[in-house]
Amino acid sequence: MRDVVEIGMGRTARRAYDLDDVEIVPSRRTRSSKIVSTAWQIDAYRFELPLVTHPTDAIVSPQTAVEIGKLGGLGVLNAEGLWARHSNVDEVLQALLVAAENMEDPAALTRELQRLHSEPVRPELIAAALKQVRDADVTVAARVSPQNAAELTPHLLSAGVEILVVQGTIVSAEHVSGEDNEPLNLKDFISDLDIPVIAGGVSDYRTAMHLMRTGAAGVLVGHGYSPGVTSTDRVLGIGVPMATAIIDAAAARRDYLDETGGRYVHVIADGAINCSGDLAKAIACGADAVMLGAPLAGYRDAPGRGLYWTAAAAHPSLPRSRIAMGPDVDVDLETLLYGPSFEPDGRINLFGALRRAMAKTGYSDLKEFQKVGLTVRA
Amino acid sequence: MRDVVEIGMGRTARRAYDLDDVEIVPSRRTRSSKIVSTAWQIDAYRFELPLVTHPTDAIVSPQTAVEIGKLGGLGVLNAEGLWARHSNVDEVLQALLVAAENMEDPAALTRELQRLHSEPVRPELIAAALKQVRDADVTVAARVSPQNAAELTPHLLSAGVEILVVQGTIVSAEHVSGEDNEPLNLKDFISDLDIPVIAGGVSDYRTAMHLMRTGAAGVLVGHGYSPGVTSTDRVLGIGVPMATAIIDAAAARRDYLDETGGRYVHVIADGAINCSGDLAKAIACGADAVMLGAPLAGYRDAPGRGLYWTAAAAHPSLPRSRIAMGPDVDVDLETLLYGPSFEPDGRINLFGALRRAMAKTGYSDLKEFQKVGLTVRA
Amino acid sequence: MRDVVEIGMGRTARRAYDLDDVEIVPSRRTRSSKIVSTAWQIDAYRFELPLVTHPTDAIVSPQTAVEIGKLGGLGVLNAEGLWARHSNVDEVLQALLVAAENMEDPAALTRELQRLHSEPVRPELIAAALKQVRDADVTVAARVSPQNAAELTPHLLSAGVEILVVQGTIVSAEHVSGEDNEPLNLKDFISDLDIPVIAGGVSDYRTAMHLMRTGAAGVLVGHGYSPGVTSTDRVLGIGVPMATAIIDAAAARRDYLDETGGRYVHVIADGAINCSGDLAKAIACGADAVMLGAPLAGYRDAPGRGLYWTAAAAHPSLPRSRIAMGPDVDVDLETLLYGPSFEPDGRINLFGALRRAMAKTGYSDLKEFQKVGLTVRA
Amino acid sequence: MRDVVEIGMGRTARRAYDLDDVEIVPSRRTRSSKIVSTAWQIDAYRFELPLVTHPTDAIVSPQTAVEIGKLGGLGVLNAEGLWARHSNVDEVLQALLVAAENMEDPAALTRELQRLHSEPVRPELIAAALKQVRDADVTVAARVSPQNAAELTPHLLSAGVEILVVQGTIVSAEHVSGEDNEPLNLKDFISDLDIPVIAGGVSDYRTAMHLMRTGAAGVLVGHGYSPGVTSTDRVLGIGVPMATAIIDAAAARRDYLDETGGRYVHVIADGAINCSGDLAKAIACGADAVMLGAPLAGYRDAPGRGLYWTAAAAHPSLPRSRIAMGPDVDVDLETLLYGPSFEPDGRINLFGALRRAMAKTGYSDLKEFQKVGLTVRA
Repeated sequence: MRDVVEIGMGRTARRAYDLDDVEIVPSRRTRSSKIVSTAWQIDAYRFELPLVTHPTDAIVSPQTAVEIGKLGGLGVLNAEGLWARHSNVDEVLQALLVAAENMEDPAALTRELQRLHSEPVRPELIAAALKQVRDADVTVAARVSPQNAAELTPHLLSAGVEILVVQGTIVSAEHVSGEDNEPLNLKDFISDLDIPVIAGGVSDYRTAMHLMRTGAAGVLVGHGYSPGVTSTDRVLGIGVPMATAIIDAAAARRDYLDETGGRYVHVIADGAINCSGDLAKAIACGADAVMLGAPLAGYRDAPGRGLYWTAAAAHPSLPRSRIAMGPDVDVDLETLLYGPSFEPDGRINLFGALRRAMAKTGYSDLKEFQKVGLTVRA
Repeated sequence: MRDVVEIGMGRTARRAYDLDDVEIVPSRRTRSSKIVSTAWQIDAYRFELPLVTHPTDAIVSPQTAVEIGKLGGLGVLNAEGLWARHSNVDEVLQALLVAAENMEDPAALTRELQRLHSEPVRPELIAAALKQVRDADVTVAARVSPQNAAELTPHLLSAGVEILVVQGTIVSAEHVSGEDNEPLNLKDFISDLDIPVIAGGVSDYRTAMHLMRTGAAGVLVGHGYSPGVTSTDRVLGIGVPMATAIIDAAAARRDYLDETGGRYVHVIADGAINCSGDLAKAIACGADAVMLGAPLAGYRDAPGRGLYWTAAAAHPSLPRSRIAMGPDVDVDLETLLYGPSFEPDGRINLFGALRRAMAKTGYSDLKEFQKVGLTVRA
Repeated sequence: MRDVVEIGMGRTARRAYDLDDVEIVPSRRTRSSKIVSTAWQIDAYRFELPLVTHPTDAIVSPQTAVEIGKLGGLGVLNAEGLWARHSNVDEVLQALLVAAENMEDPAALTRELQRLHSEPVRPELIAAALKQVRDADVTVAARVSPQNAAELTPHLLSAGVEILVVQGTIVSAEHVSGEDNEPLNLKDFISDLDIPVIAGGVSDYRTAMHLMRTGAAGVLVGHGYSPGVTSTDRVLGIGVPMATAIIDAAAARRDYLDETGGRYVHVIADGAINCSGDLAKAIACGADAVMLGAPLAGYRDAPGRGLYWTAAAAHPSLPRSRIAMGPDVDVDLETLLYGPSFEPDGRINLFGALRRAMAKTGYSDLKEFQKVGLTVRA
Repeated sequence: MRDVVEIGMGRTARRAYDLDDVEIVPSRRTRSSKIVSTAWQIDAYRFELPLVTHPTDAIVSPQTAVEIGKLGGLGVLNAEGLWARHSNVDEVLQALLVAAENMEDPAALTRELQRLHSEPVRPELIAAALKQVRDADVTVAARVSPQNAAELTPHLLSAGVEILVVQGTIVSAEHVSGEDNEPLNLKDFISDLDIPVIAGGVSDYRTAMHLMRTGAAGVLVGHGYSPGVTSTDRVLGIGVPMATAIIDAAAARRDYLDETGGRYVHVIADGAINCSGDLAKAIACGADAVMLGAPLAGYRDAPGRGLYWTAAAAHPSLPRSRIAMGPDVDVDLETLLYGPSFEPDGRINLFGALRRAMAKTGYSDLKEFQKVGLTVRA
């Protein structure tokens, strides 16, 4: 039975939980971390790590998408970001960093990002970027917004995209538009494609179920919440308590599996994961994989030079993310993901820590670990 | 059933919720924000925005009342404020700003405000101020306290007031006074008037219901809580958890509608709205419109030059509001209300954000949006 | 039914509430504050204010006990404090202030206080102090600890004490001592006296009931918790959620009234009252009066020159209170109690604010106000 | 019935409580602290204080183990720490302090600790250290990790260890390892030993019960949580709400006592005890003794010179504890444990405060005090 409270006369609200509210409980055998697997497979693609990157230019360039792929994760290029609009992204990002360092007025950075994104998307640029990834023989993934999916996807397909991410702040299976432009019919769109689609973000059971029914291979839960960076709650009054949202989406996955007699749609947690402990909790709540943003922003040679922002930062009239410094970890990407760590704060050795959390609680693979016991703080 | 707890032997208290405790849940279709309406109508007056200003001299002068009206909101002049007591308000406000900037002792500012309000109200001054608004052809509204309503209202009517706001920190339909002066009988007072009256603030179902029965067209819920500015809780032990208060007043609206066979009294949320997300939540809880104070204090050319206070700041013996700097947004009023924003913190594009929150959750007008799903944080 | 939770297997705990957790709810008529009474009577003694001072040398000297009495409250001299041990208290307090201002090591202040209290109590000194109060024709009250009550009380009686306060951090009606010294039998002790006794502090129904049965005229609830000053929770693990504790003691008062067919024992709240809002909440929870400490420490010419500490600060081996600066209000005592205020933070006009809180909720005396509605924050 | 909530569709979590969430309630007689006993006996060993030290080099050297023993507690040497790997520990610790004082990069300290622990364990060093303790005629205790218990224990036995502590971050009775090395079978291991074994940490009823069934004389509950020092929650997502964990382990103790018809296994609380109030709460929740770490780190002449860390700080790839300054108390160990105190913050006179908490609530020994009433904050 759901935990529902009356918050005023005749009006109820459901009580919902953040990852911070829950704790993993060791309560069985323990296990050597050497015999724990963190492998994840979606459609025909197998990854050593349950890792999808947030599609932000701050952490994914063509080069780093290759590096992420070689290290066992999935790097997602933003097909509407700087790489799709500018031919000199490296200079653009360097200028952004200089601006960030000299700037007293943080709004000026947002304005600059808005300006950079007011340039048109040039398909040939994103095609060139994807080609770089494909040539390196790692899985090629790109993100489009629901608004531009129909227009941009053909270009991405030609460029060899293998996994398509359709992502907006909040996505539904049914969008009501005005008269001018036809909205995206996700179901038709996906059934016309030969490649797997990951879509989202959603935050509740019903929308997750609807998205699963469109034929998506994976559903993103959340909208990339990152403390100090995103502000959807302050701007729109919409927040996503991630523990509850992941659990609900996992319930939709289970029900949809039953409804279809066996179609398993992946639940990918996107937001509120700030350290390796949060990552373990997200899987523990039922996520098959995690979409990481800010925790990846600080590695040595990250495209954003340590800066982090999400796609919502560049919205022309209502930005819902700011540009902020990511965690200053000063390690390379491999160390960030696999260790060793020398900082006991959950920022380095992100997936080594996941592996150890699984070992300490006696689980040997991700799917099993989704059943680990949880407590909530009083 | 109400959420009531025993907080000690034989004594119960109701659990009540702030806007901060709730979140809006997207759980249906989405909608283009272009086909969303934020229009609000009370009595014969229609507004593009569900916006009533807090009646403080810090944000409403005759000139800005006109500007607010032209932008689609309702500016309310304080008929007992500086415009009603001084002929050189502009100089007075400038001096207050200088004092604020040079002052080390914050109490001195309160003392100065107390002194400025010890001057008598001069009806000809407020009449002149209202005339300015009327001449610009926007809706003319003014606020009086319950204590002075009987004496001042005739002057306001002569000056052409169209909507009267009767507002005290806490207002009831039945006031027990001592022997000397007759208290205001709101019911008789309102029935003698030809113009709609908005009255408040109230914080519970019963008082809201009583005020509705006096014939008020709108009821103010809350007493203008603004963090760092108002202090009714510290001073009187009286606080208003706004989510619960708005929901309860909306329940009174519904019951009164039934009781009268169709009289719809508007619920206007006054307090705890610090950003556009809070604004959306207030409507989501059931408010028909919001009374905004501090969020409007920082626009370029605001009368208070960025300072903010509420009427309770000038109380001669027990002030319950201090003078503080409002949000430093450095945009004009139109941008503040309609965007574009370049600060992702919910302070700019207040009503564009409301429109987008409605769109993201699939609602097309304010009345429908009052039904959106809510969660509470654990 | 009590709000009891299982906090671990087979172990329950009661959920308890602080004054900070509750809010007063206006929900009826309002009333002019001019026709509200804050008068309080215990035994034959009537006070304009429901105010008993914390018996600390920081706020009560013979002179200020007189001033407090003339202003309508009850000043309680500590018969085991500096006035009872030193003939030059004024110099001693001045030196303490100088030490506080020059000191980098806060522990040194505690050590100095321990040293000052290691001097013996001299009955003639406390007698002289009480005489000063009696000569001014205000009610004479003094505090003794349970340990020294038997020895010191005869001296106090000779000196004309009219109300005796027997106060320790935690007091019970039944104390088990070792072999050497006979513990205080409060029941016999009180029945042998002709003057009313106020005893405490207690924190639960059962102990409150036991103390009432000893014949006490008033029971102190709490042990003077003051944030930044007392630390009973950190030192002993014992904290008193004051809202629940006051309500429980009021339940004991009601049951004892029934049990005795009419003996009304006063409940006096001692602790967690930091501003006028807290004071109103304490009465609202059922207190007949409040014992104020830190909120009185900052007035101009307070004996402690702005410093504040409680008796537990001088314990020779386990101090549970530190010396800290009280609120810097820079007003005289009359203004502190009766206003006017020019600081909207509930520190000045303490009882004017209580009167107004009662007026805003429609109550005319303290006893009625104990029934006002309460909410708890979620 | 357990307090279980649905935190998402189809997924429940138990609500769990920290020591900070509970308060001890005085509700009976009081008692002189002179007739209160804090004595504790495990197996044949009797201690004046229910004190086991955290096995960290920061607080336990051979010399201080002797001092702790003479003062009535049990000092535990870490048989895998610096004393087991270096012959010049004093110089090593001094260098660490110098590094800590000069260092701007805190990670460098962790790196240095990792390096110091990469040296091999030398049995002759730990044997020499234990001999020093044995020669002083106090109880000899040492800690090994589960991984190294089989290899190191024979050396410890030869060196005269009397109580063995087998401690890892999280310990289970059943460990699944890979093929290479055989895991420790605790039951066989313990039954082969003639000396009592204390094992842990555990955090739930089931694991506590399993450990009791291995024949352990004592079970450690928790993994040494210390705010600002340990970070198991951030790194692994595993936290231990200690009040609930202790209560659950005490329930296992009771059930195991029944199951075996009389074997009493001691519950030792390890973590979240930051002041004497926490210590009292741990016993109140059902602990027989406490393992103290950080609260002991600041005494004059502590081996770590005021620095504190736990064993997890030196993990080669995933440290979960940092090196931090312990509380700066500047007293000797005897004063730290027995007083007198001159700082009212629960850091000094740790066990004098426990004794007083027991006295204030009317209990005369530790076992009785485990029944004292508790409240939880709302």
